[in-house]
Amino acid sequence: MPLTDPDRLFPADPKVRGLARALYEAVANRPIISPHGHCDPRWFAENARFPNPAELFVVPDHYVFRMLVSQGVSMDDLGIARNDGRAVVQDPRLIWQRFAEHFHLFRGTPSAMWLNHSFEHVFGIDAVLGPQTADQIYDQIEAQLAEEAFRPRALFEQFGLEVLATTEGALDDLSWHRAIAESDWGGRVITTYRPDAVVDPEFEGFAENVVAFGDLTGEDTNTWDGYLAAHRARRAFFRAHGATATDHGHPSARTENLSAADAGALFDRVKNGDTTAEDADAFRGQMLTEMAKMSLEDGMVMQIHAGSRRNHAQQVFENFGRDKGFDIPGRTNFVGALKPLLDAVGMEPSLTVILFTLDESVYARELAPLAGAYPALKLGPPWWFHDSYEGIKRFREQVTETCGFYNTAGFNDDTRAFCSIPARHDVSRRCDSAFLAELVATGRLREAEAFEVAEDLAYALAKSAYRL
Amino acid sequence: MPLTDPDRLFPADPKVRGLARALYEAVANRPIISPHGHCDPRWFAENARFPNPAELFVVPDHYVFRMLVSQGVSMDDLGIARNDGRAVVQDPRLIWQRFAEHFHLFRGTPSAMWLNHSFEHVFGIDAVLGPQTADQIYDQIEAQLAEEAFRPRALFEQFGLEVLATTEGALDDLSWHRAIAESDWGGRVITTYRPDAVVDPEFEGFAENVVAFGDLTGEDTNTWDGYLAAHRARRAFFRAHGATATDHGHPSARTENLSAADAGALFDRVKNGDTTAEDADAFRGQMLTEMAKMSLEDGMVMQIHAGSRRNHAQQVFENFGRDKGFDIPGRTNFVGALKPLLDAVGMEPSLTVILFTLDESVYARELAPLAGAYPALKLGPPWWFHDSYEGIKRFREQVTETCGFYNTAGFNDDTRAFCSIPARHDVSRRCDSAFLAELVATGRLREAEAFEVAEDLAYALAKSAYRL
Amino acid sequence: MPLTDPDRLFPADPKVRGLARALYEAVANRPIISPHGHCDPRWFAENARFPNPAELFVVPDHYVFRMLVSQGVSMDDLGIARNDGRAVVQDPRLIWQRFAEHFHLFRGTPSAMWLNHSFEHVFGIDAVLGPQTADQIYDQIEAQLAEEAFRPRALFEQFGLEVLATTEGALDDLSWHRAIAESDWGGRVITTYRPDAVVDPEFEGFAENVVAFGDLTGEDTNTWDGYLAAHRARRAFFRAHGATATDHGHPSARTENLSAADAGALFDRVKNGDTTAEDADAFRGQMLTEMAKMSLEDGMVMQIHAGSRRNHAQQVFENFGRDKGFDIPGRTNFVGALKPLLDAVGMEPSLTVILFTLDESVYARELAPLAGAYPALKLGPPWWFHDSYEGIKRFREQVTETCGFYNTAGFNDDTRAFCSIPARHDVSRRCDSAFLAELVATGRLREAEAFEVAEDLAYALAKSAYRL
Repeated sequence: MPLTDPDRLFPADPKVRGLARALYEAVANRPIISPHGHCDPRWFAENARFPNPAELFVVPDHYVFRMLVSQGVSMDDLGIARNDGRAVVQDPRLIWQRFAEHFHLFRGTPSAMWLNHSFEHVFGIDAVLGPQTADQIYDQIEAQLAEEAFRPRALFEQFGLEVLATTEGALDDLSWHRAIAESDWGGRVITTYRPDAVVDPEFEGFAENVVAFGDLTGEDTNTWDGYLAAHRARRAFFRAHGATATDHGHPSARTENLSAADAGALFDRVKNGDTTAEDADAFRGQMLTEMAKMSLEDGMVMQIHAGSRRNHAQQVFENFGRDKGFDIPGRTNFVGALKPLLDAVGMEPSLTVILFTLDESVYARELAPLAGAYPALKLGPPWWFHDSYEGIKRFREQVTETCGFYNTAGFNDDTRAFCSIPARHDVSRRCDSAFLAELVATGRLREAEAFEVAEDLAYALAKSAYRL
Repeated sequence: MPLTDPDRLFPADPKVRGLARALYEAVANRPIISPHGHCDPRWFAENARFPNPAELFVVPDHYVFRMLVSQGVSMDDLGIARNDGRAVVQDPRLIWQRFAEHFHLFRGTPSAMWLNHSFEHVFGIDAVLGPQTADQIYDQIEAQLAEEAFRPRALFEQFGLEVLATTEGALDDLSWHRAIAESDWGGRVITTYRPDAVVDPEFEGFAENVVAFGDLTGEDTNTWDGYLAAHRARRAFFRAHGATATDHGHPSARTENLSAADAGALFDRVKNGDTTAEDADAFRGQMLTEMAKMSLEDGMVMQIHAGSRRNHAQQVFENFGRDKGFDIPGRTNFVGALKPLLDAVGMEPSLTVILFTLDESVYARELAPLAGAYPALKLGPPWWFHDSYEGIKRFREQVTETCGFYNTAGFNDDTRAFCSIPARHDVSRRCDSAFLAELVATGRLREAEAFEVAEDLAYALAKSAYRL
Repeated sequence: MPLTDPDRLFPADPKVRGLARALYEAVANRPIISPHGHCDPRWFAENARFPNPAELFVVPDHYVFRMLVSQGVSMDDLGIARNDGRAVVQDPRLIWQRFAEHFHLFRGTPSAMWLNHSFEHVFGIDAVLGPQTADQIYDQIEAQLAEEAFRPRALFEQFGLEVLATTEGALDDLSWHRAIAESDWGGRVITTYRPDAVVDPEFEGFAENVVAFGDLTGEDTNTWDGYLAAHRARRAFFRAHGATATDHGHPSARTENLSAADAGALFDRVKNGDTTAEDADAFRGQMLTEMAKMSLEDGMVMQIHAGSRRNHAQQVFENFGRDKGFDIPGRTNFVGALKPLLDAVGMEPSLTVILFTLDESVYARELAPLAGAYPALKLGPPWWFHDSYEGIKRFREQVTETCGFYNTAGFNDDTRAFCSIPARHDVSRRCDSAFLAELVATGRLREAEAFEVAEDLAYALAKSAYRL
């Protein structure tokens, strides 16, 4: 019995299952468009081997280790480095053993499906991970990681990636992307402009970041105009390294559309990072609209990932830093929050703003009605916790009736777990096939149309929405 | 292969499908009770032919054209009249062609199902609308519109309408309804009292409306008592034209129950329309309670449609006006908001207040617990974006367990698209049959009970809730 | 045809149904762990017969009678005692008749399933309750209630209860629990510490309660330290009567973590009950964190039931008092509200805080991400209105993918309707079996794992989470 069921995620009813399978088979081997994610471009620049199973699957993946933490395993025992850079436990086999002992915690979760998919389809494993099988599976993965075929570039090709977008901060020198471009390797790895560190007055080191932003671009970031010019310069630099999109991770979807004078005055108040919470929030909101206006000029697709309350556990943040599994979603308002941006540029058909949410209650109430009306808006796929069987089902069920399929932007994996990329796109393709088969079975879509839509959801929509 | 699947919207499992079909067949041909909607009474007064396919299906239906707008088609190209009354494109065949080219945008939406149902069951069309079939379908509809059998009164009868309620403002002279009553035609078309324009201080022309309200009724609407008397007079006038219900479209469900003195003082502050947002909101809230108290006197059923942020896109509102597809739902609180009204009259068994929401997160959390306790409350069917397969499913799944079937008010179509009325009631009857079949299949309802409930949901509950 | 379908709540698809049935059969007869509820310990102390069918099934169960009230039956006609203690109608057979006449109102609700289950499986009834059968069923139940086998202790054993927790206020003398312990009966009935009346400054009689709290414990509850010491004393007293848990019913999940000085000053401001709403709310929030810290000391499991707007109908509260079916859920924020408590003790693996909500929109957005990260947090089962087929389905679908099964706390029935306890646990076991069967059918869980999880959900998790 394989680790993953060949008919997984298809409806149980035999007839509907047959149609879902046919739809899936039509798109299963299409190239992967990965227009948004957090892989490290260095992997593809250096093409070095991945260090070991624990550092491939556990240590860098806060999706995974926070589940063990939630059941009382300490971060120290999982090899998570403290802020001083020191990991208390470093033996990867010990970490792996602990992971294996707690693997049952993932029952019923997408993490289990992604991990099993990677184990089976990338590393050829057929045993369920557990205390008894931990060592054998460790050895098997470890041996394969030493092979040429398991280096990053080889896996990139094996995975069928047509394009992979990474995400870099505004101050990044993009040297790894340059190295990839200058190499003899043909894989398309592009960057994305993510300026949070120079846009959010509450970001650690914001004031210094703004100074560095000026140094990097030769613009006078002490003035509002110079600061905007620096953004334009960096956006052009990122585009020269393949970027077709920007990305913005804000606590809320608040936007503002101030006059130039008011925006400049606001910038003067926040530029030293020493400001009120309200000014900081307003400035983030103003910058979303500025970014949208620049997108209208330079054609970059704009992504807004709103609503994560980052670093919720103070103690974890102080001891271990960011991205440690304690980013918790909160209620997010889009209808009022986006109005200033939309009144400014929302009716522009040449602009594309892709919205993501962690608050599913807005799918049907706010996002689908907005995307089903404004030419500039599209909906990104289910994000983060919702990139799963039930999550994708809820998304399709709640948005399709109001905004259809063509106001959505295909799938993206948004992952830093490289080996999970095929698994995630496979889940998406299966879930969409299942949804389409249900539509046909209940007379809501004709079968021939379902095949066209399946292709659009698996491949074409991501490519066109991100202008790839 | 017909445009609409004869077994559409029934569960896929053969056994459950068989029961759903049997339940549906028992109610499929029951007369249609349409107790709330926005058809134009003039159609039935004049009984003139509908002008052409584009003006029947596209131009007046913001459900439909906003989807094309969301994908970059301009309002001008769809024949939407600008505020100066001028439509930039006027050739209905051109508009129809554009509609046909983008018909795939509706895949998976209820609009597609309603349109296909109308095409097939009203006009006998069997081809899928698209660029190739556009002309032929246009010609076919156009030819039929010229026939006597496709005039409004004939369609009214063919659709099996037992009663159709329209919605008129407080200042309407109801002349079309009078004309219908005075004609030799027996169709029952009644009005509904919708006083938003004289109740909402932020409505365009509110101050003038209040003056006209006084002129119309002979009451002194410069005083609080006179203003209330004017409402009583108009309610009686509407009842004389068949109305059994009032309707109130407010941005929130806020209610107030001020003393007469405080209410009068508030009226004095708002009556010129030049007031604070808070006073305007409080006044709308006070008027909901006043309307409920008048309903207790005169027996009119009260409908509250709360939570739409109307005219969200400033540019669209300025150029094209109201009802152009840019009404976006927002979060709506009912529990706190309704308390003043409910403390005043909520325990009265002789009062019926029917609640509608666009915020599905309140179905299980707020509306079902409220309706499952207060004698005065009933839940209206899923509204607007949620009047669909998934929307109806979510509604039944989320409210039935807490308030049962008998605190709901049957179906209403709430449409201005006349030809879609049979399609919408058909969707409702099918979805309810499917839900009931699932209940029986999972042992939650006995089969004989399911047949009784099916009849209640399709016919009896709407009739009794609206006192028709 | 029996009142309850032997295959009820299982999926319709024959193959999935077969697996669901197999999973259910494996756990159907496991002992019942009832770690949270509102049964009266006096029943088991005195072991007197239950008075009559109406007082067993209708009068004390606000789940049940509010449904009749919502359709216009008066509380007086249902035998609900007024605040002066007088019930207007007292004849139980009349009340029962009224109940039977309206039994169709419960179609599709969990109340119908619980009632039918009790009728059939406790009292052997096979007729559907209605006006015609009311008398016969009344007689049948009445006759059985007179038998020894239908006394509380006998039913406790027949129901397979391994442990039943009741809930008592901080001022309760626990005499009924002492009587049970001192009796020769071996049933395990334990108490739970619910200090709302001495923790919530807005509780009726708060100031007097705090004085009584001091008298009872010999601590000086006029001071903050004495007040905290009184809690410690009562917690120890409750533990001596079997308690392993505390319970806290607050309008919101707000917590605070003030310095001792600030907390003391706040206590001084609220201790007379004559305080601002903000101080009262802050004090409740502070006390949640104090209770969590004490739980860390004494090992008691902490339950937070947040978000009910109690006694929503003023008129009902004034005439009939608390718990009359007019407690309405409201929006509840957990992410921000719990942060002070979590920053204080959330990372402690030896602490267990079990969260309950009536706002399902927080399942996937807030509760599952929190429980999937913080070691101290677990999720309680669907609460109150959501303890049902659809409610349990939504809960599992919305939390499992993010926090798995092992951050949930099994089932609890939370009921005061003793005869419904087997029915409720049966519903839970069936729904979980159905969910697990769907996971297996869609390749998301291996069959052998499903059997392990079924046992955990039906028995083991509740036992371990509540330290029983």
